[in-house]
Amino acid sequence: MAGADSRELKLEENQVAGNGLLDRRLFLKKGLQFGAITTLASTSSLAASESATPAKVEPDKLPWMHTPGKPFSIYGSPSSFEDNVVRYPSPNELVAGNGVSWTPLHLMEGSIIPNGLHYERHHNGVPQIDPKKHRLLIHGLVKKDLSFSIDDLLRYPMQSKICFIECGGNSNAGWNKQPAQAEAGYFNGMVSGSEWTGVPLSVLLDEVGLRKKAKWIIAEGADAFAMQMSIPIEKALDDAFLALYQNGERIRPENGYPLRLIVPGWEGVLNVKWLRRLKVTNRPVMARNETSKYTELQPSGKARMFTFLIEAKSLITSPSAHMLLKTPGLYQLTGLAWSGRGKISQVDVSADGGKTWAEAELQEPVLDRALTRFRLPWHWDGSPAVLLSRAVDETGYVQPDRNTLVKERGRKGFFHYNAITRWNVDTDGFVSHVYKKDESAKDTSDISIDSDWD
Amino acid sequence: MAGADSRELKLEENQVAGNGLLDRRLFLKKGLQFGAITTLASTSSLAASESATPAKVEPDKLPWMHTPGKPFSIYGSPSSFEDNVVRYPSPNELVAGNGVSWTPLHLMEGSIIPNGLHYERHHNGVPQIDPKKHRLLIHGLVKKDLSFSIDDLLRYPMQSKICFIECGGNSNAGWNKQPAQAEAGYFNGMVSGSEWTGVPLSVLLDEVGLRKKAKWIIAEGADAFAMQMSIPIEKALDDAFLALYQNGERIRPENGYPLRLIVPGWEGVLNVKWLRRLKVTNRPVMARNETSKYTELQPSGKARMFTFLIEAKSLITSPSAHMLLKTPGLYQLTGLAWSGRGKISQVDVSADGGKTWAEAELQEPVLDRALTRFRLPWHWDGSPAVLLSRAVDETGYVQPDRNTLVKERGRKGFFHYNAITRWNVDTDGFVSHVYKKDESAKDTSDISIDSDWD
Repeated sequence: MAGADSRELKLEENQVAGNGLLDRRLFLKKGLQFGAITTLASTSSLAASESATPAKVEPDKLPWMHTPGKPFSIYGSPSSFEDNVVRYPSPNELVAGNGVSWTPLHLMEGSIIPNGLHYERHHNGVPQIDPKKHRLLIHGLVKKDLSFSIDDLLRYPMQSKICFIECGGNSNAGWNKQPAQAEAGYFNGMVSGSEWTGVPLSVLLDEVGLRKKAKWIIAEGADAFAMQMSIPIEKALDDAFLALYQNGERIRPENGYPLRLIVPGWEGVLNVKWLRRLKVTNRPVMARNETSKYTELQPSGKARMFTFLIEAKSLITSPSAHMLLKTPGLYQLTGLAWSGRGKISQVDVSADGGKTWAEAELQEPVLDRALTRFRLPWHWDGSPAVLLSRAVDETGYVQPDRNTLVKERGRKGFFHYNAITRWNVDTDGFVSHVYKKDESAKDTSDISIDSDWD
Repeated sequence: MAGADSRELKLEENQVAGNGLLDRRLFLKKGLQFGAITTLASTSSLAASESATPAKVEPDKLPWMHTPGKPFSIYGSPSSFEDNVVRYPSPNELVAGNGVSWTPLHLMEGSIIPNGLHYERHHNGVPQIDPKKHRLLIHGLVKKDLSFSIDDLLRYPMQSKICFIECGGNSNAGWNKQPAQAEAGYFNGMVSGSEWTGVPLSVLLDEVGLRKKAKWIIAEGADAFAMQMSIPIEKALDDAFLALYQNGERIRPENGYPLRLIVPGWEGVLNVKWLRRLKVTNRPVMARNETSKYTELQPSGKARMFTFLIEAKSLITSPSAHMLLKTPGLYQLTGLAWSGRGKISQVDVSADGGKTWAEAELQEPVLDRALTRFRLPWHWDGSPAVLLSRAVDETGYVQPDRNTLVKERGRKGFFHYNAITRWNVDTDGFVSHVYKKDESAKDTSDISIDSDWD
């Protein structure tokens, strides 16, 4: 530990909040300031320094350098060494094709989710739709009904938008009495971000001509469940669109092939997949999924309904539950933040359970209603730490802590859980999900809603 | 054709260039202005109007609505109805694993290319690298050599960048005497755009400490070819980074798993895949791929070397070669533009072979050195048309026409073809690739370089 004094001094100079949170610009700067980290790293196990070797100039040629590699492929797949990076299905055994599969956010970086890993939420399985037979009907309070084939729609003007979709039931284990013990993505990964491309709904509504009493649109899917959801006409005319493409290629079957309604920033179920019908009406349809489900029972006994908007939320994806920090030293804290109200304006991070906070770096470009990656360097000194992130969006909305959310909503609402998540790092470096002490103390009921999907 | 006069009037009002190019804001605006298009569409075969049906209120339930769909999947795949949306391999039969595969740009929308469709260019196949055994060595003119495992690098600070990679040999068929007859992506699709995430190279170079004479970096891949490329130290310190993730997940094997050097805006071969070594030197290595290949023979007999930068370029992806416009009427012209110098500032489109031009709409956000989607509404009246797009970047560089490029460079350079592409629409609606008449007249040699990959 030679030179410990000068290292400590430099660490302190760059510390911006308790328990080792460092200036967010530190990692990306060169010269003296970064030199401090390098010096620090040399004796505190930053990855590179563990393995520094002045040994051979030319490294060994491993087996794959001795024979030609695999040939070209018409459609690629991940490396077999990454076969753990998969969605985690959580099917409802009582209803065929009902349930969810979670995106492994804890194993990912950046802010685009590849199509193969976008979360799934189905009510009766994934229909295998022949696009030549599929049609979209727009009818109801319109001047003329119109029916569109997919080929029709492909000729229309398109727009692209990088945005998130989050299931209203994401992170619902947060309502549970005890903190869920699973990898971060496997109880928070019903949110994904993609570049969606399709036809503005306003263009088609203009073409059919809305009648004066038009107030709602009922969107219906072509799955066996025939999912129906009600959407206010204002949203339909504002920024909703009919997506045909996801991340450059046609939408995958599990994400709504051949046509999905996108309502940016609103809960996932409204982004109706396998879209077959838009009925313009003067009132909502009051379908099962907007009465018995996708509503939130409050402490008063009344239910919140039509809670469309996804409020601001964030999640540290690394380090996160079930990871192991092998040694003290420098780490990158990173995660995702999003808000249905617009852009994320700030993410604060704490390493001491919320006593002190530091502002994380937001990855540019920060886009409207899109997943936003945040990062902050952290020096873990080997003592216990509790990691938190708190998102603020451009409207000034601040992600609540769990106490506040539970106090406001009770614990039987199931949907729209967006409280701050707490990751505990113990002295062995093992990370687990915890509640604040008074958070679990206050929870006296024993409902558990993990499997309540139908 | 009742009402033809008023339609013609409105069409003229909105026409911004010859042969039916319409105002770029037209499609996305509602009310009267868009109403004009709707009226027009009603008798001129815009998709929707062909099929307008006031028939049944409730459409038939097709087979997939009668039985539960497929179950959840841990990693998704495209619909079987999209099995034509694939890369087109063009292997060199003389060298194992050498050649390219083309991205089907003509079948895609938006500006993110999904990982399974990112173009490939290999010199000796795709190595199947065990990430636990792979290391990156940085050595040469440095103060201390360092060797990094992948786990080491995963702890480092990261950055994400949405940017394109284009092979220097993309569109090389453009040098040919006769216009290539293939789908747009299958001779221009050696360009793809992704969100890449990894460690800034400057951080690691700071850690090893550059010596004063350091001028170049030799990057070497761990494939059987052991690709070596030379990169000036200024670029390495500026914005190069070591990517571990592509579009959220770890890089696919064919794109460099587990580690790829990204040099934004510079030709693809410099973005060395399967990166195993960075040697800091005082001069370039003069490897085979920067002497006999990836250089351009000029009319003077001298070769251009180290032509790193990708100049501005654009391509209309739809309508494009081998497509068939079934009827006259409204179409969306769309395509991609990119520049290694920075952001695209403007894309002009012509429907009359370059006599008149109109400015296309650029899809926001327009990002630095990223694929940029452009779109413009077009009314095809059924007469012959020649469609062109011309990119301008933020430095003012204007994409050249083929005559200018050939005059400057001759036709033996093979690399860095970025001239304007011309799509001819005949009276049957069939689209084909053409040269301007004097362009083919001037071509008297008969070299054909389609298969010259080694």
